[in-house]
Amino acid sequence: MGDLDGNADRVLQYARRAAQGGARIVAFPEMTLTGYPIEDLAFRATFRKAAWDKANWLATELAADGMDDLYVVVGTVGTDRASDKPRNRLVVLHDGVVWAGYDKHFLPNYGVFDEFRIFASGDRSVVLDIDGARVGVAICEDIWQDGGPVAELAARGIDLLLTINGSPYEEGKTHVRLDLARRRAAEVHAPMAYVNQVGGQDDLVFDGGSFTVDADGTLLQRSPMFVEDLAFLDLDTDGASRKPGVVAPALDPDEEVYTACVLGLRDYMRKNGFTGVCLGLSGGIDSALVATMAADACGGGNVWGISMPSMYSSEGSRDDAADLARNIGAHYEVQPIEPLFVAFQNRMRLEGVAAENLQARIRGVIVMAYSNSKGVLALATGNKSELACGYSTIYGDAVGGFAPIKDLLKTRVWELARWRNAAVARGVGIGGIAVAGEDRPDAGTIPESGVAIPESSITKPPSAELRPGQKDSDSLPDYALLDRVLAAYIEHAHGRADLLADGFDPTTVDTVMRLVDRAEWKRRQYPLGPKVTALAFGRDRRLPVTNAFRE
Amino acid sequence: MGDLDGNADRVLQYARRAAQGGARIVAFPEMTLTGYPIEDLAFRATFRKAAWDKANWLATELAADGMDDLYVVVGTVGTDRASDKPRNRLVVLHDGVVWAGYDKHFLPNYGVFDEFRIFASGDRSVVLDIDGARVGVAICEDIWQDGGPVAELAARGIDLLLTINGSPYEEGKTHVRLDLARRRAAEVHAPMAYVNQVGGQDDLVFDGGSFTVDADGTLLQRSPMFVEDLAFLDLDTDGASRKPGVVAPALDPDEEVYTACVLGLRDYMRKNGFTGVCLGLSGGIDSALVATMAADACGGGNVWGISMPSMYSSEGSRDDAADLARNIGAHYEVQPIEPLFVAFQNRMRLEGVAAENLQARIRGVIVMAYSNSKGVLALATGNKSELACGYSTIYGDAVGGFAPIKDLLKTRVWELARWRNAAVARGVGIGGIAVAGEDRPDAGTIPESGVAIPESSITKPPSAELRPGQKDSDSLPDYALLDRVLAAYIEHAHGRADLLADGFDPTTVDTVMRLVDRAEWKRRQYPLGPKVTALAFGRDRRLPVTNAFRE
Repeated sequence: MGDLDGNADRVLQYARRAAQGGARIVAFPEMTLTGYPIEDLAFRATFRKAAWDKANWLATELAADGMDDLYVVVGTVGTDRASDKPRNRLVVLHDGVVWAGYDKHFLPNYGVFDEFRIFASGDRSVVLDIDGARVGVAICEDIWQDGGPVAELAARGIDLLLTINGSPYEEGKTHVRLDLARRRAAEVHAPMAYVNQVGGQDDLVFDGGSFTVDADGTLLQRSPMFVEDLAFLDLDTDGASRKPGVVAPALDPDEEVYTACVLGLRDYMRKNGFTGVCLGLSGGIDSALVATMAADACGGGNVWGISMPSMYSSEGSRDDAADLARNIGAHYEVQPIEPLFVAFQNRMRLEGVAAENLQARIRGVIVMAYSNSKGVLALATGNKSELACGYSTIYGDAVGGFAPIKDLLKTRVWELARWRNAAVARGVGIGGIAVAGEDRPDAGTIPESGVAIPESSITKPPSAELRPGQKDSDSLPDYALLDRVLAAYIEHAHGRADLLADGFDPTTVDTVMRLVDRAEWKRRQYPLGPKVTALAFGRDRRLPVTNAFRE
Repeated sequence: MGDLDGNADRVLQYARRAAQGGARIVAFPEMTLTGYPIEDLAFRATFRKAAWDKANWLATELAADGMDDLYVVVGTVGTDRASDKPRNRLVVLHDGVVWAGYDKHFLPNYGVFDEFRIFASGDRSVVLDIDGARVGVAICEDIWQDGGPVAELAARGIDLLLTINGSPYEEGKTHVRLDLARRRAAEVHAPMAYVNQVGGQDDLVFDGGSFTVDADGTLLQRSPMFVEDLAFLDLDTDGASRKPGVVAPALDPDEEVYTACVLGLRDYMRKNGFTGVCLGLSGGIDSALVATMAADACGGGNVWGISMPSMYSSEGSRDDAADLARNIGAHYEVQPIEPLFVAFQNRMRLEGVAAENLQARIRGVIVMAYSNSKGVLALATGNKSELACGYSTIYGDAVGGFAPIKDLLKTRVWELARWRNAAVARGVGIGGIAVAGEDRPDAGTIPESGVAIPESSITKPPSAELRPGQKDSDSLPDYALLDRVLAAYIEHAHGRADLLADGFDPTTVDTVMRLVDRAEWKRRQYPLGPKVTALAFGRDRRLPVTNAFRE
């Protein structure tokens, strides 16, 4: 994001490899040069000018490097001359100049997207003539809506539909994209190439997995997910495929989601200058999974796990935390909180929830002290069920710069933990999160113990351990039930009447709705974390904090 | 927000008073029944159904109460039958039924607004015939854009343009609205009535101040700002004014902004069930102003001020905090942090910024302990300059459920403190924030000392007092300069080249840009607070956290 120099250099490197491979045209994802989504940065005139200058520099550089004959398709930000509003633009670099600007027509303004806020709409379709082949172009949302540029291209007649995309990952979306591409390819009677961004950007993870389908729906080529990739495909000028490309195998759904979380964390760290992380290790499943993801993202040697037992922590929890740290090769430190708790209580004499929150907040202070003194990123370990119900202490266990599992329901946390352990048992590291051209980090190393996450962290009843014998089930419905209610209430915006019609009992429905509504103010102050479901907390779900509606 | 019952009852009460005053038509603000802005709550089908049922209930109730002949104009949420998308709707209740739906045409999708996200656009203008007078209606943004429904109404010919609005306060906007209304009244050759919402809703403050201008631009009537008001205006059926209405005097700019902050806080408390607040009192100007605002919002007896001196706190600071608390009638408690600091340092041995942050975080734990144990709202006391530069400790002085001065630059904080003291000296309380029909709270009481905020809190050089002799000016440019750079960089989106052209020196520009950009992650976790400027942090300014652009 915003790294014009770095992005242009990357284009140059890949263009060179493309040219060496005999390519006539090479395409990069939506807003290649600027990063995506650029949000209100689009309004900064100096940014738009710098992006324009960089595109020109790149065109010149390509030509100087002997690639003046290659057609290089990149995304960038443009400006509508009439309104001075930014535009989401595709340009072709060729012959040393920037030409053939196509501006995105349909501007997504739902879910996580705010493009109607920042961009003016493009109003014409563009067909490139490359060696006699007619290549129609479109940008992301243009293929998700009927009509518009794709319909125009179908009418004009093209030999290839080339789309550049910045399509954020969510579970199950891969199939949706493929089905959509097949529909559009049929519509234009030509193959369609879908080029997608890869990498984490704040709360979004772009999963790559670029692919090409033939007019009849055949999958001609597919890149692996979650890694940068340069794929070649050889088409005749009339769009007929000369020889099949490489089709990467599909990922297991658990591996997909796990890898998305790891990539989201890894790129947040890399792009914000962090080389390590710290987090509290309670012995519970949430912190165990986050620590394991962190080890996969940056190597266990860069993870500081801090055990902060209290008078209510069980011996088993401490052992589990220590075992986990050893399994993933993390640093492990113990900071008992009892002396600090006593020091506060000598002055404050708190009771009930206030005393419970005090324990969590002392831990928050310790985690942030590690973060500040070691210059590492503090990770919050809350899951989506907990975030939904406000079952966390703000400024306590909620502290951190990033929250890798905030979009995973508790039942999904367990599933991914089991998957991660099973992957180790099968003797494989996790799916490729290494960036092409870089060394693979020490991710996916196999611990001697044969598992990463201690079995007892997975199987024991969840507890915050803030008072003797406390269990999550004292305050919350059973997670299997809770997660189903949450999915209906949050992802499907089902109100009270709908939830009753879904078959949930009134007591559970009222409890869950009350908890979720009352926790909105806490969610607003929660760290960013990767969206992996159809509806994540954050900009994907914008509800007022002050809200009296209870149905 | 979402209080359909309460809002409908309020409409009923005012309609009764209107009818008793001989009104033929009474109008309420945009989305009267639902609250505004409803954000993604619009997507909940049960909410739309409940709003529809409530409008029908209200129509029946009005008729049963003998008001079937009155025309009652209210705003609510509707549904577009074709797309099933919500609509921002105006309905007229008359003769016991809901009729004459007009749907907002222009949907604002800039600044704090996301209406293109949630609503489908209306596509036809509506003229009501009331006793032979042709009343054209429009909703808020419809008058801010040229063309559309107002142009249609001008062509159709009307005797009155009636607009219902939910227009959030920002400094200087009153004049803009009045000028705009004059332009529209001239366009339709008829008087224009501008009915605005009043009250706080999360980060927005609606300032009321409803008014009517004649076709020639004469101000016929104006309600006071920041209070609910029922104003009568007597027009002939051809739109000619029979007799002038009451024109409330304009407010002083300082009083306007101060009152907006107080109302924002007061309504956040009232609507979220808080009767009191707690905050740290450092003796500095920020916490002093916030405490004074809090006393004006809920009465000094409901304010808990906590002095948390450290080894680096000056004697003067402690005296100022105590004086302030006494002046505003707040509870005052002292919790020295040194023993707690020592307890942490015995384990952690932190240095530099980590040790400074530790002090602030111990204070955060104490403030939240008060909040939890007394059930009061914790207030964050950061100002906009501090928030911009990240000159605060996350989870330390940044803790709280609401941040009353987060949109005030430091120089504005000083101005408002002086204004507040001068208002006391003149023997007046602050401008009316009491809600019509409620008792006035014990706001604006005059302390015996003759001032609320100790003079030395205003005049002394700002310091975080986290190390010996520390001053804000060690880390930041002088506030007079800093605030000008911030206004240019943040409100006007000036990039580096623009700021240099503005005449700022390169060192200052680079320092400020670096500080502002690096603090984005902290701002994301900062509490809500009232927007009072043209561009507040929060949904008004959406920038990526991960961002390498530095120009």
